[in-house]
Amino acid sequence: MVRPTLLAPDVTAAHATVAARLAAELAQVERIFDEQLESDLPEVNELCRHVERYRGKMLRPSLVILSGMAAEGDSGAPSIGDRHLIVGAVVEMIHMATLVHDDVLDDAEIRRRGRTVNSLRGNETAVILGDYLISNAFHLCSKAGEPWINLALGETTNTLCEGELVQLAHRDDLALDESRYFDIVRRKTASLVAACCRIGATLAGASPSQADALFNFGNDVGIAFQIQDDLLDLEGHQEVVGKSLGRDLAKGKLTLPLILHLQGAREDPARRERSLRLIAERDIESLMVVMRTDGSLESARRRAMELVARAKAGLATLPESPARDFLADAAASVVRRDA
Amino acid sequence: MVRPTLLAPDVTAAHATVAARLAAELAQVERIFDEQLESDLPEVNELCRHVERYRGKMLRPSLVILSGMAAEGDSGAPSIGDRHLIVGAVVEMIHMATLVHDDVLDDAEIRRRGRTVNSLRGNETAVILGDYLISNAFHLCSKAGEPWINLALGETTNTLCEGELVQLAHRDDLALDESRYFDIVRRKTASLVAACCRIGATLAGASPSQADALFNFGNDVGIAFQIQDDLLDLEGHQEVVGKSLGRDLAKGKLTLPLILHLQGAREDPARRERSLRLIAERDIESLMVVMRTDGSLESARRRAMELVARAKAGLATLPESPARDFLADAAASVVRRDA
Repeated sequence: MVRPTLLAPDVTAAHATVAARLAAELAQVERIFDEQLESDLPEVNELCRHVERYRGKMLRPSLVILSGMAAEGDSGAPSIGDRHLIVGAVVEMIHMATLVHDDVLDDAEIRRRGRTVNSLRGNETAVILGDYLISNAFHLCSKAGEPWINLALGETTNTLCEGELVQLAHRDDLALDESRYFDIVRRKTASLVAACCRIGATLAGASPSQADALFNFGNDVGIAFQIQDDLLDLEGHQEVVGKSLGRDLAKGKLTLPLILHLQGAREDPARRERSLRLIAERDIESLMVVMRTDGSLESARRRAMELVARAKAGLATLPESPARDFLADAAASVVRRDA
Repeated sequence: MVRPTLLAPDVTAAHATVAARLAAELAQVERIFDEQLESDLPEVNELCRHVERYRGKMLRPSLVILSGMAAEGDSGAPSIGDRHLIVGAVVEMIHMATLVHDDVLDDAEIRRRGRTVNSLRGNETAVILGDYLISNAFHLCSKAGEPWINLALGETTNTLCEGELVQLAHRDDLALDESRYFDIVRRKTASLVAACCRIGATLAGASPSQADALFNFGNDVGIAFQIQDDLLDLEGHQEVVGKSLGRDLAKGKLTLPLILHLQGAREDPARRERSLRLIAERDIESLMVVMRTDGSLESARRRAMELVARAKAGLATLPESPARDFLADAAASVVRRDA
């Protein structure tokens, strides 16, 4: 099956070489992923095959591999090994688990143009299937024979869940401010992306400062990715995004454009009151009009672009290499993506 | 806070010594458990404090410790160390995660005489809180510095989830037979109990044959425990059990007494038809009458007692010791418990 290539940067000759190597490594990651989930129980295999259909551009395993390639620099030594591939499958499995459980939380019916597990088989099965994916992710991780990765990824998933729990605690909290928003997003989305970059680099023998640079890169890209998600939930086209839109507001989640809008209306009680009413009524169309008018949609988009710019600038601490350039373009494509 | 002592065997002098040591070790397990879940986020700490209230007799950490003590034999060398305590907290955390998610699956409102997380805070929070507990369990496990335990427990939780998934796939399946029932129970309940025994023994330096004996002991005790759970769900007193009764049937779960009853009615189509109607109507009271009359409740109870007898007999391969005797009595108390 042909998968969408990662992040689709403009293909130059150098990029094509990196892309080809990445594609070959990702095919191995897929194989390891599928093998890990092979069960002796047909009921379980059927569910896992359904989840494999959720697979997209494989952002997280791609970052594990690209960070490894960027850290190995120009030496050309192929330091992407089995451990990168195992970790790639592990982080994709963790990501899939969060998708399956998020769909339960969001009552989502559509994911990647197909029905969600919860809509097909009920919330109960989706909850346990997510658990099965988490369990398999940690089991597979232990096979890498690098206990520090188990520790690092365990800490990361703790942080990820904390982000989700805080977000849930602030459902329908119209006083949620920007700093709390960024803390939630850093935990629930960016922490795993950043960990992918750091682990990929470290496994390739990166120096601590290079590994830190890639961690920061991943953190910025992860937050930008989430802001783009916020925007797509408001502005996307359902056929392209592949899932129902407007879910965030429907589930009482304040996203960055709305937070910026309410912040901007602070000094104008009548305007703020009107917007709060529109939020209570889940009137997305009218909210889109006011957020377009006062520039809060644009302002959220600008934040994402600033994060991408900072991410790219931070790559300067790494040796020049085609993989580094590829990472820079990949970061840029995060805020250009339409799905 | 005073906790119910494990399994409450009749206290002889030798038992009292083992019980005192066990209680001291369990206090350490509780401390490690609570420390692991300390977060910088008050929203998260509040939820974890709620879960700590679910703590009961700590069967699983107790078996880690007692298996270690039984394997160390009469030498008296205190081979119960930090790793036993960490593993004890890990298995208790895994168990708590399954309770939190099971309560979502069962729409349960009451657990240990308190409200469940899902009933207090919604299914969404309960799903992510369960994930947080699983994640912390694996994170804590990595701190034991024994990668083989990560592998073993990862495999165990895979099996546990498989059991739950197969059980869900057979909801309302009135053709579920005894052999499938035992396979489900082995996976979803006994696998973790058996792993506790094996890991506890192995950490104390047990020989492979001793570790196997304790694994088999845990497997039998785990299955007996689940059968007793099935019986308590039908016959228990809500105030004692501390949760609502009749949930299994209400959620379309066939339990052993009902399976044995339907099996016994195989040759009598009219009787079988009548029982299937009672099941469809969730008429527990009438079902209890027929299951009492044809002896299927008694028969299920006998299976549990046979498993306990086999578990106790298997302990003969271990050197004689007060801990071994304590384990034997603990096994017996599993089928005597009323909560």
